[in-house]
Amino acid sequence: MSSINAIASQISKQIDQISGLNITQPLIATVASDNAPIILSGVLLTLIVIYLASKVGSEIAKRLDLPPVLGELVGGVLIGVSALKLVVFPEGGIEASDSLIMSALQMLNQLTPDSVNSIFEQQSEVISVLAEIGVIVLLFEIGLESDIRQLKEVGIQAFVVAFIGVTAPFAAGTIGLMYFFHVAAIPAIFAGAALTATSIGITSKVLAEIGQLKSKEGQIIVGAAVIDDVLGIIVLAVVASLAKTGEVDITNVFVLLISAIAFLFGAILLGGFFNNTFESIVSKLKTRGNIVIPAFIFAYVMAFIGNAIHLEAILGAFAAGLVLDETDARKELDELIKPVADLLVPIFFVTVGARADLTVLNPMIPENRSGLLIATFLLLVAIAGKVITGWVVFGVPDVNRLAIGIGMVPRGEVGLVFAGIGTASGAIDKPLEVAIIIMVILTTFLAPPFLRIAFGKTKEIETIQN
Amino acid sequence: MSSINAIASQISKQIDQISGLNITQPLIATVASDNAPIILSGVLLTLIVIYLASKVGSEIAKRLDLPPVLGELVGGVLIGVSALKLVVFPEGGIEASDSLIMSALQMLNQLTPDSVNSIFEQQSEVISVLAEIGVIVLLFEIGLESDIRQLKEVGIQAFVVAFIGVTAPFAAGTIGLMYFFHVAAIPAIFAGAALTATSIGITSKVLAEIGQLKSKEGQIIVGAAVIDDVLGIIVLAVVASLAKTGEVDITNVFVLLISAIAFLFGAILLGGFFNNTFESIVSKLKTRGNIVIPAFIFAYVMAFIGNAIHLEAILGAFAAGLVLDETDARKELDELIKPVADLLVPIFFVTVGARADLTVLNPMIPENRSGLLIATFLLLVAIAGKVITGWVVFGVPDVNRLAIGIGMVPRGEVGLVFAGIGTASGAIDKPLEVAIIIMVILTTFLAPPFLRIAFGKTKEIETIQN
Repeated sequence: MSSINAIASQISKQIDQISGLNITQPLIATVASDNAPIILSGVLLTLIVIYLASKVGSEIAKRLDLPPVLGELVGGVLIGVSALKLVVFPEGGIEASDSLIMSALQMLNQLTPDSVNSIFEQQSEVISVLAEIGVIVLLFEIGLESDIRQLKEVGIQAFVVAFIGVTAPFAAGTIGLMYFFHVAAIPAIFAGAALTATSIGITSKVLAEIGQLKSKEGQIIVGAAVIDDVLGIIVLAVVASLAKTGEVDITNVFVLLISAIAFLFGAILLGGFFNNTFESIVSKLKTRGNIVIPAFIFAYVMAFIGNAIHLEAILGAFAAGLVLDETDARKELDELIKPVADLLVPIFFVTVGARADLTVLNPMIPENRSGLLIATFLLLVAIAGKVITGWVVFGVPDVNRLAIGIGMVPRGEVGLVFAGIGTASGAIDKPLEVAIIIMVILTTFLAPPFLRIAFGKTKEIETIQN
Repeated sequence: MSSINAIASQISKQIDQISGLNITQPLIATVASDNAPIILSGVLLTLIVIYLASKVGSEIAKRLDLPPVLGELVGGVLIGVSALKLVVFPEGGIEASDSLIMSALQMLNQLTPDSVNSIFEQQSEVISVLAEIGVIVLLFEIGLESDIRQLKEVGIQAFVVAFIGVTAPFAAGTIGLMYFFHVAAIPAIFAGAALTATSIGITSKVLAEIGQLKSKEGQIIVGAAVIDDVLGIIVLAVVASLAKTGEVDITNVFVLLISAIAFLFGAILLGGFFNNTFESIVSKLKTRGNIVIPAFIFAYVMAFIGNAIHLEAILGAFAAGLVLDETDARKELDELIKPVADLLVPIFFVTVGARADLTVLNPMIPENRSGLLIATFLLLVAIAGKVITGWVVFGVPDVNRLAIGIGMVPRGEVGLVFAGIGTASGAIDKPLEVAIIIMVILTTFLAPPFLRIAFGKTKEIETIQN
C-alpha cells in the first residue's frame, strides 16, 4: 500500500527542485517538510509514551507517599536510555535504530535508514524544545506562586545559603579529591565546581507539591536556588576559560556577573511597570486568550533575554512570574496556567529521567568501579555541603534548617556541563567523569523523598505543638 | 565576549567525537543538541512574534466586527513571507538569510552561515509541529463542543452537502477549464480535484467564534467538512495514482476508503467504551493533570492513528473529542482545554497566513497574469460549487442555506497538494498552478467575514420574528 502522505511529501520535494519560484508553499503546516507526517507521528507517539510514564510514575509515587515528581523521573528512566529505550535522544552515539519508537515508525512507513535518522533527529529536537518550554512554564508558574515581598525579606538569608552552598562543596570536593584520591589540581577543581549548582526545577516542583513553596523555608530555598544558578553559571565561565586557555577570562566573567545582576534586579525594579502594563493590556483585549497570550509573551520575552545574555531561560521566566502582582487578572492567570503546565512540565521531568543513563551505576562494568568509589565521596560532599547551608540561616526563628539544606541538594545540568567540559579538554579522566554523573543523578533522585520527610517533621511538630 | 552556552555546546560536540561511551548525556534538555540554546532562542522569538501578530490581528478584526481568526490569518501574512519576513519556513528556496529572526540570531551569536541554516531548519520544524499540534487541539476542542447525537441526526444532510460540495466544483471546474480555457483533460482534472476539499479548521473556528457551532447549520457544516476531508483525501489518492502511473490504483483507493470508514465509525461505535474508560481513569487519578493528561493521551492516540492510516491527524482528534460525553469530568475538561487551545491554536492560523505567498496576486508580474484570469474562473466555481450545497439540504425546516453553503467555501491544504502533485508530474503548467494557489488563498480569506454576515442575517430575522 502506497502512502498518500508519502507521495505528497515526495512530490513536494520534487517541486522544490523543479520550480525556482517559491509559489509552492502549502497553506497548512501538514506538508511543511518532506517527512512532516512521519515527524508528527513520532512526536505524537513520544508524547503519548511520556504522558503514560508521567502519570503511572506520579500516581504510584503518590500512593507510596513519595513526591509525584520523583515518580515522573523514575517513569522517564523506565522508558529511557537505561531501560525500554522508547524515548531516547540522538546524543552520545545513540542512533534512530536504538529507539523503539523510531523502529516502529520505520516498519510502518518503510523508511530508508537515512530518512529515519533525519526524522529521529527532528522529532528529538521537537521533544527537547517542548521539554525546555516545559521547564520555562514551570519556573514561570513558580515565579507566579512566589511572593516578591517575602522573597525580598529572605533575600539576605537566601544569598548566604547560596554562597555557602557553592563554596562549601567546591572547597571540600576539590581538597578532598586532592588529599584522599591524589587527584591533580585542575581535575579536582573541575569536580569541585560540578558540585556547586542546585537544580531549581526539581526543588521548586517538590516544594509546590508538598505545599511548602510559600513557607519561609520554601522561599529561602527558591531564592537561594536562583542565586545558586547564577553563581554556578559564573563558576562555569571561570572553569571553562581555565580549561580553554589555562587562565581565567576576567572580562567574560565580569560581563556575565554584571548582566546577571542587571537582569534580575532590573526585572524586579521594573516590576511595577510590567505589572501595570500587563493589567492594562489584559483589560483592553476582547478576544480569546486575552490573559494567557500577554502573560506568555512576557514570560517568553524574559526567557529569551535570559537565554540571550548567556544566563538561563528559566531565570527569565521565573523573574517574569515574580513581578506579576496579585490582581484579578493574575488570579485568573494562576488557574489558566495550570492545565498548560500540566501538559508541558511532565515532558521536562520525564525526559530528564529518560536521558539519565543508569548503566554508570553498574559495578559489573570494570570502568565504573573506580568511578563508584570517587562517586561515593562526591555524593557525601554534595549532600553534606548543601545540608549544612540550613544552619547558616540567621535571624529567622523556628526555621526548618534541615529542610532548607536538603532543598538545595539536587544538582542540575550545570554539573553535567562541567563533567563534559572537563572530559573534552582532557582535564578529567573517565572514572572522575562517571563519578560526577553518578553524583548528579543520585542527588537528583534522592533529594525529593528526603525533602518531603524533612518537611513532614515540621508538620508533625506543629501538630503536636498545637 | 565568548558565550558560555556556545562553549558548553561546542564542548559537548567535541565529547561526542572523543568519547565512545554514551555517558555524556546531559540530565537536562538545555544542552541536548549542539545549538540547543540558540534553537530555543529562535523558537521563543518566533512564538513571541506569532503571539503579537495573533493578538493585534484578532483584536483589530473584532473591533471591525470581523471574525478574529481572519485577523490572525492577516497578522500571519504581515509577519510572513509576503511582507515582514519575520516568520518564514525553509521551503520553496527560502533560506535562513531570508528570515529576519534568523539574521538577528546570527548577528547576536556570531554564527556561521552553515550553522544558522541548520538552526533555521530545526526551529522551523519545531514551529511547524507546534502548529500541527495547534490544529489537533483545535479539532479536539471542536469535537468536544460538538454534539454526537445532533451530528448523527444531521448525518445524512452532512453527507449530501459534502458529496455535492465535492462533485459540483470538480465537474464544473474540470469541464469549464476544458471548454472555456481549452485546457487538456489531465490538467483540468487536477485543477477540478483541487476545488474539492473544505478546510475544516478555518470553518469550525469561525463557527465557534460566532457561537454557531452547536446550531443545526453549524453541525451540518462541521459534519460535512469532516466527510469532505475524507472524500478529498480519496480524490487525492485517485489523482495521485493517475499522475504517477497514468491509471488509478484501485487497491489503494479501496484500502483508504475502508480504513477511513472503519476509523470514523469505529470511534463512534466504541465511543461509550472510551467514555467510560476516561471517566474511571480520571476518577482514580490523584496527582496534577488528572483530567488533561488522560484526555490528551486519548486525543493524541486517535490523532496518531488518523495520521498512521494516511487519513489526517485532525480527523482523529475530532473523533476523540466527539465521543467524550457530557459528564462532570468532561465539563471540567472544556474549561481546562481553553488556555491550552488559546496558546497553541494561534500558532496554526498565524503560520497559515505567514506561509501564504501573496505575490502570486500581483498582476505586475507577467507570469501571474494568465494565472489570474484562470484564478477568477476557479474562484467563482469554488464559491458557487460550495454555496449551492446549502440548497440540497432537505428535511430541515428554516435552515440557513446560505450560511451552510458559505461555511463550506474555505479550501485547505489538500488543494495545494493537488497543485504540487500536478506541477511535479508536469501535468499542469505554471499559470494553472498559480491559479489554484490564488483560489485556495482567496476562499480561505473571504469565507470568514461572509460566513459571519450570513449568520448575522439569520439572527436579525429571528429577532424580527420574535
